[in-house]
Amino acid sequence: MSHALNSNHVDKSITLEPPGEIGPHSLAVECSTRQLADLEMLATGAYAPVMTFMGQDDWRSCVESMRLADGTLWPIPITLQVSASAVPASIGEIRLMSHGRHIATLTVAERFAPDLQREAEMVYATSSHEHPGVAALYKAGDLVVSGPLSFHTLPRSFAGPEYLTPFETRLATEQRGWRTVVGFQTRNPVHRAHEYLHKVALELFDGMLLHPLVGETKSDDISAEVRMRAYKALLDNYYPQERVLLAVYPAAMRYAGPREALLHALSRKNYGCTHFIVGRDHAGVGDFYGTYAAQELFDKIDPDELGIEIIRFEHSFYCTRCEHVASKRTCPHDASQHLALSGTKVRSMLAAGDTLPAEFSRPEVAAILAEEYR
Amino acid sequence: MSHALNSNHVDKSITLEPPGEIGPHSLAVECSTRQLADLEMLATGAYAPVMTFMGQDDWRSCVESMRLADGTLWPIPITLQVSASAVPASIGEIRLMSHGRHIATLTVAERFAPDLQREAEMVYATSSHEHPGVAALYKAGDLVVSGPLSFHTLPRSFAGPEYLTPFETRLATEQRGWRTVVGFQTRNPVHRAHEYLHKVALELFDGMLLHPLVGETKSDDISAEVRMRAYKALLDNYYPQERVLLAVYPAAMRYAGPREALLHALSRKNYGCTHFIVGRDHAGVGDFYGTYAAQELFDKIDPDELGIEIIRFEHSFYCTRCEHVASKRTCPHDASQHLALSGTKVRSMLAAGDTLPAEFSRPEVAAILAEEYR
Repeated sequence: MSHALNSNHVDKSITLEPPGEIGPHSLAVECSTRQLADLEMLATGAYAPVMTFMGQDDWRSCVESMRLADGTLWPIPITLQVSASAVPASIGEIRLMSHGRHIATLTVAERFAPDLQREAEMVYATSSHEHPGVAALYKAGDLVVSGPLSFHTLPRSFAGPEYLTPFETRLATEQRGWRTVVGFQTRNPVHRAHEYLHKVALELFDGMLLHPLVGETKSDDISAEVRMRAYKALLDNYYPQERVLLAVYPAAMRYAGPREALLHALSRKNYGCTHFIVGRDHAGVGDFYGTYAAQELFDKIDPDELGIEIIRFEHSFYCTRCEHVASKRTCPHDASQHLALSGTKVRSMLAAGDTLPAEFSRPEVAAILAEEYR
Repeated sequence: MSHALNSNHVDKSITLEPPGEIGPHSLAVECSTRQLADLEMLATGAYAPVMTFMGQDDWRSCVESMRLADGTLWPIPITLQVSASAVPASIGEIRLMSHGRHIATLTVAERFAPDLQREAEMVYATSSHEHPGVAALYKAGDLVVSGPLSFHTLPRSFAGPEYLTPFETRLATEQRGWRTVVGFQTRNPVHRAHEYLHKVALELFDGMLLHPLVGETKSDDISAEVRMRAYKALLDNYYPQERVLLAVYPAAMRYAGPREALLHALSRKNYGCTHFIVGRDHAGVGDFYGTYAAQELFDKIDPDELGIEIIRFEHSFYCTRCEHVASKRTCPHDASQHLALSGTKVRSMLAAGDTLPAEFSRPEVAAILAEEYR
């Protein structure tokens, strides 16, 4: 993950906006993948009501009380971190760049040095560098700049028909006549255990938004491109086409556990979801969060304020006695009857060239993963 | 079904209640099975807020507008029908008897001749004698008597630990700590298709009240005793014990389709259910009601007034391609891949001594049904 500001790119030329005017002291900044993902979420309204990088009041309120300064529920700061040494106080405008393309311009209204350890402790519930989200936070820069944001182009992270903005997604679900839309966040291939949970949801709701996160994840997660192929193979063969919409969620993973689960849910409202699935250890990593910590956070939030209904799911597995996928909510048999493979185990089987068992993975999905590992 | 008033039983002796007083002209009436079921529902509070047989204002309002005279939502008249010729106007008190036992006393406050054809058309949506509920309505008597009801004993239709009054049922679910309780009404053995729907519900709600109707049904329905044994075998082997409560629902079937589905739902509120499952053709018979007529009736009712959330389920089947039970909400494959047996087909297979397929029925359930048919 590269978060380094490209300070060789300093460019003091006149900026293009506002058109015809001479801009203030201007600086070009090459964005990290994470910054681009945040820009994409802001540009499309996926983080509405947050429409630009936060200033100090919102940052502090969000860190301390999970709310914006105006009281709106919001769990994670969306800030533009830069290096104080690379962005002198004279800079009035930052041109946010990606590989030479000018993505957006931030008019600097505010600069402040955030207490990143406090942010880590409050948002991630840990200040450990071992946590990938915290490590990224520490590396991203010691200065936060904020102000009005104007976009030159949409930083589109994903090519393909599954790229739908929140507006396009709402339109698609409305065209299908869905009154209830359940969102499913995933960053992993979908195996039969997930399919089971999807189908439980589909028995109750009109449609499902299968919404894989395609922004930056840990390096050992399976690539977005392979996951998308696997999703399509699964949907084509086992799901009623008219009841599932596959579209990408461009955010990067922060692995902030409960607070990120809340961010995922709030953002899915912008995508038209009425319901959102939260499983065990949602958006967690390692042992940093309790299994039910994310679900418990939602227990404490007024459902009317939340504005999206949370569907709490258990971990599921194939049970040889039930002869189908189940969870401990539905299966009385003990673990000796259960087939459940961890992500680590799946990767080691694939690396060894083993075929994933049919009870675990649909053959169409297993073949795509096997091919990728070959 | 015997609905004849036993007019040989006329008894003008002094009644026991109110104690010490000389009663009015009194008549003993032997109750039909259906009348006993209504008495049992009234005695236990299962029909609350209806606590006695309805008078003319409630009857008319209920028939015409699905509401009691005070505006409370109520879909089906609960009346005591007798033969006008057997209950002269001088009768002030009716002792409701069952095999020589005095169940309850009705103090006659009102007598009226209901328009049974209108009741049939409005409540059952047909005036056809072919409809078993309408046929029973026509046979039950041309006079309705109503007034205060005092119980001498609980007319208990079912012996065994699964007999729980609404109060006892609420207590049991509260003791289990269930915040959400989903009620499942059935009058048939539970096959894997039903088990699938139960488990879908159990993935989402804290507990399930499996609530078989044990009052009078059509003569070709499988007996309550056999069904109970089959339920217990199923629950013992395939359900988490702490998440399911099996208890009986003493009502008789009216087969009134949508209006009876509403009655079932309203009554289950008294049993502590927060959610109630309504499938295809709920409480229907033959081709009298549209497949989704019951679900559509609920669409027209204000959820806050209803006070119990309706879970709408589709018909489910085993799909050889999905390799599990599914419904058309979750399975994209065509009918050639589906295994679904009608009640008629199941009965003919059992009668022929055939084993029900494992994809259709758990072996423990199939064995009980096979034994019954042997």
